[in-house]
Amino acid sequence: MFLDKKLFIPGPVDVLPDVATQCALPMVGHRSKDYAELHGQLVERLKKVMHTQNKVFLSATSSTGWMEAAVRNCVGKKALHVVNGAFSKRWYEISLACDKKADKIDIPWGSAAKPADVKVKLDSGEYDALFITHNETSTCAMTPLDGFGEICKKNNVLLCVDAVSSMCGVKIEVDRLGIDVLVTGTQKCFGVAPGLAMTAVSQAVLDRSKIMKDKGFYFDYMQYLKHDAKNNTPSTPPIPQMNSLNYQLGKIMKVEGLENRFKRHREMAEYTRAWAKKNFALYTEEWCSSDTVTCIVNNRNIDLGTLSSRLSDKGYAFSNGYGDLKGKVFRVPHMADRTMDDLKEYLETIEKIVGPRP
Amino acid sequence: MFLDKKLFIPGPVDVLPDVATQCALPMVGHRSKDYAELHGQLVERLKKVMHTQNKVFLSATSSTGWMEAAVRNCVGKKALHVVNGAFSKRWYEISLACDKKADKIDIPWGSAAKPADVKVKLDSGEYDALFITHNETSTCAMTPLDGFGEICKKNNVLLCVDAVSSMCGVKIEVDRLGIDVLVTGTQKCFGVAPGLAMTAVSQAVLDRSKIMKDKGFYFDYMQYLKHDAKNNTPSTPPIPQMNSLNYQLGKIMKVEGLENRFKRHREMAEYTRAWAKKNFALYTEEWCSSDTVTCIVNNRNIDLGTLSSRLSDKGYAFSNGYGDLKGKVFRVPHMADRTMDDLKEYLETIEKIVGPRP
Repeated sequence: MFLDKKLFIPGPVDVLPDVATQCALPMVGHRSKDYAELHGQLVERLKKVMHTQNKVFLSATSSTGWMEAAVRNCVGKKALHVVNGAFSKRWYEISLACDKKADKIDIPWGSAAKPADVKVKLDSGEYDALFITHNETSTCAMTPLDGFGEICKKNNVLLCVDAVSSMCGVKIEVDRLGIDVLVTGTQKCFGVAPGLAMTAVSQAVLDRSKIMKDKGFYFDYMQYLKHDAKNNTPSTPPIPQMNSLNYQLGKIMKVEGLENRFKRHREMAEYTRAWAKKNFALYTEEWCSSDTVTCIVNNRNIDLGTLSSRLSDKGYAFSNGYGDLKGKVFRVPHMADRTMDDLKEYLETIEKIVGPRP
Repeated sequence: MFLDKKLFIPGPVDVLPDVATQCALPMVGHRSKDYAELHGQLVERLKKVMHTQNKVFLSATSSTGWMEAAVRNCVGKKALHVVNGAFSKRWYEISLACDKKADKIDIPWGSAAKPADVKVKLDSGEYDALFITHNETSTCAMTPLDGFGEICKKNNVLLCVDAVSSMCGVKIEVDRLGIDVLVTGTQKCFGVAPGLAMTAVSQAVLDRSKIMKDKGFYFDYMQYLKHDAKNNTPSTPPIPQMNSLNYQLGKIMKVEGLENRFKRHREMAEYTRAWAKKNFALYTEEWCSSDTVTCIVNNRNIDLGTLSSRLSDKGYAFSNGYGDLKGKVFRVPHMADRTMDDLKEYLETIEKIVGPRP
């Protein structure tokens, strides 16, 4: 039914055939020893990727579900959201949808927050959780996370970070940075099919969750904690994606190496930024430009619909701007198992279609 | 890593190799035309299986998530739960965890509710949603659903039915029965890997949902409705399971036929019940004994742990009783693509291990 296109979209990403095949392994019961072994091994591997000793929970959900979980389990008094794009805005809206008190700090799209931007508000003592989108997929702004943890800790505020489109492509040291909740999913830098999302939660979060009301059942960390002790989940998990992710992480650690994976993402980002500046312009401020996806200003007024269909003819799925940015920018992802050669070929193809800069 | 065992557990079930392979198809973007085509076709096929014209929503969640959604979107005044086993009890607990007012009607385990059991309560006008577990996987009681819809409709009560372990193995005519919310998942009678759950919701439910507060985001039907118009989902869906389920339903309709599938489940159930009565005894009252899984009293005080490991040696995964029933009963599932020959072989193997009834 589907053409096998190279997906130059910021997730779901192309999955390597050997990784995809793991989704078709024979089924196992989710209360069996075989399953517990898989679950335990996968969690240990994820802890290494995340640089954390915190609990790591797995669930059949998109990352959005774990974003809601962070709100339900952490916000007692009031949430503070850094909003610098469509996905951070959505997290703020999730807080409101969960009937939480929530404020936002608006940062210009294409930029990112610095610790000083949140300090005064957090020092007020009004808030008990701060929400930051590490990698804003809509604007391709990546927030340097150093310094937020200290301010949060001092004020007894839980630091919740969405690293959906950066984890496993960029080094994020959860424990060193003092991240209390980290949310991520399989279908971006991990290079695995969507359907499984992972969250790392600190002891401070578990202590908070214990006394929180109205968490519901599905996203209640206490349910996951209870089952974590048995290496399983409160309800049936997405076993195909778990097999696939477990295999993929084993392979990454053995073959490419995590540090090399981060380096490859950084190099592809640098190449793309240089290309963007030569042919168009960078949308995102360069100091916070993402290592996993680049946002490029359409300052030549190219018809992006036509560009997209020309690229489609050549076997590429193209990524327009997201939401309000549609037509004004386009995005070039360089994540997961995408290689520098793939990327160069793709950018050259775009150059051939749009011609040299006048 | 895993032995390829025949799973005689009531889900996740064995997935046929051609169906499992669909989980490894090349990835597509979830905002692409290719995806919309898959989504649209799958929803149409599900409507046929469910015998409904209602909206059918898909999500990366286990069925438990859609059970929580039913509570969050439907219960304004008070929920009434029929509790006749571990899973119906859990639905009641989900209502409480969502901070809803909820009452329960306790029906003896191994039995099922009749419309008369809920009539007086519903006539009181106190309730706005009734929750029934069609197939109680813990006790193997299947509730005949005729008659509940009329009482609900008369009282403006939404009828919510968990058909997780029966839909696609048993004929459930959602529209004729007046079911407002039906919840089901891939990993039981559909014969597909876990990670995708499906829910059918009536217009009355959508009208209710529209005015409900505190639904959160992930399980808010309004979000799914908005995206249903575009044949997609609010956040990234589990594309591997969608491909697999779409293929499986196409094949079922073309090759076996839905009615034949229901007939096969019924015949396997009848065979298993006869076997149970000959060798042990039925746990479930026969009038409400399930067509997809049979619960058998361990009235010979067999050591079920030993039986389980003997069966394991022979390549079978065995199903003990669930929760409080562990050791007292055992369960024989006969669902999805299990054949009568498989089933006979399995029951003969048990007979050989435990010997003839004294």
